[in-house]
Amino acid sequence: MKTAAILIIGNEILSGRTRDSNLQTLARELAIKGIRLDEVRVIADRFTAIVAAVNALRASHDFVFTTGGIGPTHDDITTECLAAAFGRVVLEDPEARRCLTEYYGAGNLNEARLKMACVVAGASLIANPLSAAPGFQIENVFVLPGVPKILEAMLPEILTRLPTGATIASQTVTAWLRESEIATELTAIQQSHPAVDIGSYPFMREERFGTALVVRGTDAAARMAAVSSISALLRSLQAKFEVE
Amino acid sequence: MKTAAILIIGNEILSGRTRDSNLQTLARELAIKGIRLDEVRVIADRFTAIVAAVNALRASHDFVFTTGGIGPTHDDITTECLAAAFGRVVLEDPEARRCLTEYYGAGNLNEARLKMACVVAGASLIANPLSAAPGFQIENVFVLPGVPKILEAMLPEILTRLPTGATIASQTVTAWLRESEIATELTAIQQSHPAVDIGSYPFMREERFGTALVVRGTDAAARMAAVSSISALLRSLQAKFEVE
Repeated sequence: MKTAAILIIGNEILSGRTRDSNLQTLARELAIKGIRLDEVRVIADRFTAIVAAVNALRASHDFVFTTGGIGPTHDDITTECLAAAFGRVVLEDPEARRCLTEYYGAGNLNEARLKMACVVAGASLIANPLSAAPGFQIENVFVLPGVPKILEAMLPEILTRLPTGATIASQTVTAWLRESEIATELTAIQQSHPAVDIGSYPFMREERFGTALVVRGTDAAARMAAVSSISALLRSLQAKFEVE
Repeated sequence: MKTAAILIIGNEILSGRTRDSNLQTLARELAIKGIRLDEVRVIADRFTAIVAAVNALRASHDFVFTTGGIGPTHDDITTECLAAAFGRVVLEDPEARRCLTEYYGAGNLNEARLKMACVVAGASLIANPLSAAPGFQIENVFVLPGVPKILEAMLPEILTRLPTGATIASQTVTAWLRESEIATELTAIQQSHPAVDIGSYPFMREERFGTALVVRGTDAAARMAAVSSISALLRSLQAKFEVE
């Protein structure tokens, strides 16, 4: 199975000002593609931290997705960091310049906007149908914007560049009991269903405790079999539950 | 300035099933305490990945907060990973056992619940006023639950254990123009206000583009001065803006 990592570049996430949503967007699409998201890092807009994280993640995962830092302002340093990580230069891309000229109008292409036409040498552009400034791919690293709507608009093109494996899907059994009431039996069920991952997530809703039992894997029959075992356990305990 | 990192342990975040909220909760409290959150990692419930991440982060930051994986089920492996990372054993803590006995009732303390009384040797407990099972602190690492309401309930005690520096606060100037219209001038403003960090975050709202200019730092006068410079720039461009 192919693996992926996401590198979220952004002081605004680390400050607590903005709650990231790109992780969830990318995670869901990767699961459909059968690519396992192994790790996410959120780091500040600092040169050495970004270069080190890019190099660590691209060496240890099949694909890396960076988000943020490719705009026109002083705090947008992702492109130069990527260039340093790959030991390449930053170049103005003619096609990116053409898109920006078309979008802003030829007379309005100031220095800041031209910065968004710059990519790492050898990268291939990812079109931005919403606001022209492109993302780009360099080897196994996809360099994407932080604005969720723009990232989402780039997704169809990104997905065509990724291999398609067996979709990782899940079924959830929501049970109205404490996970500590079934932990031992659940361990046994996990052991007898090694083709799936069973996650146990306690929650509180309207002052009541419940547990979401999430069965995840690529094999539909294996998921069904594990859900059956969990359902049988819950029935034997006369616990209220629903399968989604 | 003291620095911190958060390690989110949880397949449910990486699968896209759950959108994390603990990052934002902790980030905001740390900012008030004057502790700079430098890095967040989200990793899967896998032994070697957790041990490696704990050791990397505790060496490079003043404080580390882990979330998730301290419950009673088979996928809760954080405590044993922490023990391995610190080269210590896992022990049942008498005070944790007392809390769990009081909460569940003496006759209901099964093996799974007793697992939640186990901590890394030498750790100090963090009380859980909501559902008894404690978190714990070992050296500079705070080991916290993944359920947001329980984590929030532990926060007051955690905060008393952290040093108090100058609060990192921010002011936001929301401007109805594209960031590429002011990027050059903004670079100059950042350079003449080195005591603050100025972030520029484009957004789309009701089909219109705007830019949030966030001035962040510990010095209120320095923040005010930067906001004044930004406001003067926006007025000179006759741009509509609000200061929050």
